[in-house]
Amino acid sequence: MDLNKISSPSFLKELNTKQLQDLSEDVRKFLIQKLSVTGGHIGPNLGVVELTIALHRAFNSPKDKFIWDVGHQAYVHKILTGRADQFDTLRQFKGLCGFPKRIESEHDVWETGHSSTSLSAAMGMAAARDIKGEKNYVVPIIGDGALTGGMALEALNHIGHEKTNMTVILNDNEMSIAPNVGALHNVLGRLRTANNYNKAKDELEQLLKKIPAVGGKLASTAERVKDSLKYLLVSGVFFEELGFTYLGPIDGHNFETLEETLQHAKRMKGPVLIHVITKKGKGYLPAENDTVGTWHGTGPYKMETGDLVKPKTTAPGWSSLIAETVRKLARLDDRIVAITPAMPVGSKLEGFASEFPDRMFDVGIAEQHAATMAAGMAADGTKPFLAIYSTFLQRAYDQVLHDICRQNLNVFIGIDRAGLVGADGETHQGVFDIAFLRHMPNIVIMMPKDENEGQHMVKTAIEYNDGPITLRYPRGNGLGVPMDAELKVLPIGSWEVLREGADATIVTFGTTIPMAQEAADTLAEHGIQVEIVNARFIKPMDEEMLHRLMQSKKPILTIEEGILQGGFGSAVLEFANDHHYSTTQIDRIGIPDMFIEHGNVDLLLEEIHITTEETVSRIQKLVIKDIKDQAGIKA
Amino acid sequence: MDLNKISSPSFLKELNTKQLQDLSEDVRKFLIQKLSVTGGHIGPNLGVVELTIALHRAFNSPKDKFIWDVGHQAYVHKILTGRADQFDTLRQFKGLCGFPKRIESEHDVWETGHSSTSLSAAMGMAAARDIKGEKNYVVPIIGDGALTGGMALEALNHIGHEKTNMTVILNDNEMSIAPNVGALHNVLGRLRTANNYNKAKDELEQLLKKIPAVGGKLASTAERVKDSLKYLLVSGVFFEELGFTYLGPIDGHNFETLEETLQHAKRMKGPVLIHVITKKGKGYLPAENDTVGTWHGTGPYKMETGDLVKPKTTAPGWSSLIAETVRKLARLDDRIVAITPAMPVGSKLEGFASEFPDRMFDVGIAEQHAATMAAGMAADGTKPFLAIYSTFLQRAYDQVLHDICRQNLNVFIGIDRAGLVGADGETHQGVFDIAFLRHMPNIVIMMPKDENEGQHMVKTAIEYNDGPITLRYPRGNGLGVPMDAELKVLPIGSWEVLREGADATIVTFGTTIPMAQEAADTLAEHGIQVEIVNARFIKPMDEEMLHRLMQSKKPILTIEEGILQGGFGSAVLEFANDHHYSTTQIDRIGIPDMFIEHGNVDLLLEEIHITTEETVSRIQKLVIKDIKDQAGIKA
Repeated sequence: MDLNKISSPSFLKELNTKQLQDLSEDVRKFLIQKLSVTGGHIGPNLGVVELTIALHRAFNSPKDKFIWDVGHQAYVHKILTGRADQFDTLRQFKGLCGFPKRIESEHDVWETGHSSTSLSAAMGMAAARDIKGEKNYVVPIIGDGALTGGMALEALNHIGHEKTNMTVILNDNEMSIAPNVGALHNVLGRLRTANNYNKAKDELEQLLKKIPAVGGKLASTAERVKDSLKYLLVSGVFFEELGFTYLGPIDGHNFETLEETLQHAKRMKGPVLIHVITKKGKGYLPAENDTVGTWHGTGPYKMETGDLVKPKTTAPGWSSLIAETVRKLARLDDRIVAITPAMPVGSKLEGFASEFPDRMFDVGIAEQHAATMAAGMAADGTKPFLAIYSTFLQRAYDQVLHDICRQNLNVFIGIDRAGLVGADGETHQGVFDIAFLRHMPNIVIMMPKDENEGQHMVKTAIEYNDGPITLRYPRGNGLGVPMDAELKVLPIGSWEVLREGADATIVTFGTTIPMAQEAADTLAEHGIQVEIVNARFIKPMDEEMLHRLMQSKKPILTIEEGILQGGFGSAVLEFANDHHYSTTQIDRIGIPDMFIEHGNVDLLLEEIHITTEETVSRIQKLVIKDIKDQAGIKA
Repeated sequence: MDLNKISSPSFLKELNTKQLQDLSEDVRKFLIQKLSVTGGHIGPNLGVVELTIALHRAFNSPKDKFIWDVGHQAYVHKILTGRADQFDTLRQFKGLCGFPKRIESEHDVWETGHSSTSLSAAMGMAAARDIKGEKNYVVPIIGDGALTGGMALEALNHIGHEKTNMTVILNDNEMSIAPNVGALHNVLGRLRTANNYNKAKDELEQLLKKIPAVGGKLASTAERVKDSLKYLLVSGVFFEELGFTYLGPIDGHNFETLEETLQHAKRMKGPVLIHVITKKGKGYLPAENDTVGTWHGTGPYKMETGDLVKPKTTAPGWSSLIAETVRKLARLDDRIVAITPAMPVGSKLEGFASEFPDRMFDVGIAEQHAATMAAGMAADGTKPFLAIYSTFLQRAYDQVLHDICRQNLNVFIGIDRAGLVGADGETHQGVFDIAFLRHMPNIVIMMPKDENEGQHMVKTAIEYNDGPITLRYPRGNGLGVPMDAELKVLPIGSWEVLREGADATIVTFGTTIPMAQEAADTLAEHGIQVEIVNARFIKPMDEEMLHRLMQSKKPILTIEEGILQGGFGSAVLEFANDHHYSTTQIDRIGIPDMFIEHGNVDLLLEEIHITTEETVSRIQKLVIKDIKDQAGIKA
């Protein structure tokens, strides 16, 4: 059928199984074709085609509320709720969001991006429903990986206690992004292979009937065995212990089974968990055969072969550069260990893991545990490298502050994907970390100007033994600069002058340095000579250089790809204020007080005026004001 | 024995059971007497007297590592490791810390304050041990309440997966601070009443032997029953499922049982969890009989009667004022619900809970879930009041940012214990929340000057339906001001002038306003007239008033009981910078870039120079500079 013509999921209720299967086929073809052009989360969505169709048949969205955990598996839901025609713009600037988005549709009742929030949201919506005396269903759909996130476990515990009516769909594809870790995963594994449990239950009941009556004492024991059969045999003992009715495991690609189980669940009271087994990437061989997570989310690919369209750069990817430098140093320093919360692929730690399997810890989607475990390791004399995306480090705010910084432990945090990330959008932009780390006592924050400085910063972090040290690096690739063979240690808190210039100074770091260089070139053509300072240490700052800059009274422009409130520019203002320098010659460029949506990073930067043009314009204004001031002319 | 003479726990190994019991008696008497003077966490410590002694007998601290979760139950540990003589200074300025503190003793290997970190720390230390090829034991001691915190569950999952050697002590006293909630608690409850399970196991084995041999099919089922006996009978099925060997439940006040079980655990491989049942407050009747949590931590009390020494103020406590105002408004507005992460007593929500049991949610120690559940409730049209201590809100940083602020949901967060909290010390000071909230788009942050304004702010928050709104209030009591009968809504972002003055302006809020008033009085005597502005909205600020203040070019002093980096003063600097105002006439008082230890709040404020004298001095300097500037005299 023509998916573009779907305006509401209500048509699904009229279809027979054959028609549903045909629709699934059409949806898969559509996804495989569209995503080959735009890129996107192909694997997770191919896995939930039948499940999503079955859910929209069994329930009445938006009255019944679907809450998609993480949200990258909501493409089918988007198609079924009338958004197929927007898939050419998927994850692009002003286009269809790659996650549920409330302004897009009344069927998107909850926005996500970060993992493990769905059960808490569901508990909230179910509690609100009950208080208002309404009757709708609340249906969170959570993956087996997301279930290991602490807040999901907190929610399970609370929901089981409250016995709140809801239908939890556990979408178990045996992977989160990379293959799953954790004991819970093993529990699920045992359940998965337990499909003859119902048969066994019948057998056992027969067996128990044959036990001779042997008096009160033993009879009561036998009774206890019988009562406990569910623990043995219904097999969802873990969830049952927590207060859930457990149904499954069922085949997530079989419409009859899905339909039957969902209808059964709808009739039950209290929290029900349906364990659905799905195959990530189903129906597209390259994705089906993926065992490491390459096809979780991709850029564009050749549809026929599954060959990924490679980026044109030859410069090293940032994650790879940092992780490989850590690996190199780990050969010489056996204190070094690596920790990742479920991102061994994204953080490019596969090499480290294969070379040092005993010194590598993938803790699952568990950022809090990852950070405090790192603290524990540092407290006992090792040097943990905790690789974590900027946006996910938000989850470990308290652990970084309370456990790492407060105890001043030698943890090295690699803050991956710092700055705007593009297509993943507002839930994933790494724009808050400077503002949320800078006020933590004892912390060092670095960001390199290029990959060569990046490798020296890794060395610096490894050699630093006075407390926590962080290294921010952006998504994507380096600049292609020559790499020094010898690694060196940078003096903590030292900035460097990249370009001399008498008329004004740009103080910036990381990704915005090339922009500053370009602006300086343009300004030079207009006769304005701009000094560029690489503020590679965001904390502590280079106070000597700051004194020099401020004493010179030259105009200063700070630029950061981070939120302005409490950010790096604010740190410069604070320094000026602490030392009684004027700030009227200082200006700040950065991310304004708003969430930044998805899209190409260059377009986003343009939208929020972090551009060469803006830099040129701001410097010109500062310089003109400065000249007027010097000439004694009032503005 | 004279506890003051203990210098190391090694003497314990020589004692017989009778001597251990006598020692326990002495420790209890000591604690009851000392804490009656200083106050402290009496309940938790009386509960772990025998357990702590048994641990120090069975293991060799500091080689073996005790990791006390939360840490407020480490007093006995402090006594046994040679710190009895410091208990007169407990929780006082420069005195003995109420939590483990590494600088105090080599036996304190991990510092805490926030809940649920011990298992992650233990995993870190155990992993470091294994990498280094060392052989010590790692022994986290965690309460049943702390176990519901998400990061503890993340850690259980990871430890069970890695099968790391460690001995987890589950100290189960059926309470965290208030009585526990959560399905996990119910699991523990079932285990607790299962002390005849071992007997039952023997019976069942006998029973199974009597089952007639009925051929392969049934025999294999019987075999499966037998294999699964542990699920039925050893009773720690939940922990066993996660990969732990479960021992217990055992009586935490019986030395023989403790000794036997600990020695058994020491011989086992992999992670072992010993479920120890203790009685909070044991040996002191007022604390033993506590069912709500009053005796978790107290101020001074009369030892004989257990009467708490009441504070002398008649002004309402802040927590009570805010919670009771919410309760009053809830009578008129049935959208209002309340959520607390295990702090119904501390946040004074008992009244709300008894009047609106269906609209009250105690979610256990689960700040992340609490915040996102609140978001879910708001998304479905209710108005949640989430009461949470400033320091614990750190745990929900990402949930406030990603779920509440990003979706711009109408959650009202009551930030209790904002500012310095005193005796609990550096893990509990509520000094980061302004810096970590201020950069979140969409959020409103308020703090009242007194309890009357506080009640109006509650009304303001309830009526506000444009997104998240927060209300900070300090630990302790209000000022005793008259209370308006009628509640009113304050215009969002409006400041107020509390006192006129032509020479300078102090811009401050909350607890530091009385200090500013006092300084203004002193300055008036010196002929300096100071305006005082109540910056009751920290975000958004009163831009109109800021323009007026900055245009006047009068000196401005900002004062905040919060961290300076990225704090309120920085927001004022940012505003000035954004609008091209000078900042050389601005100065900022606040908390410096360091962790603030425990002690009386007034002494702490003096230590970090947040005082009337400092305020007077800073204003004088600003005014003198201003006069010189106006007179054209260069500094």
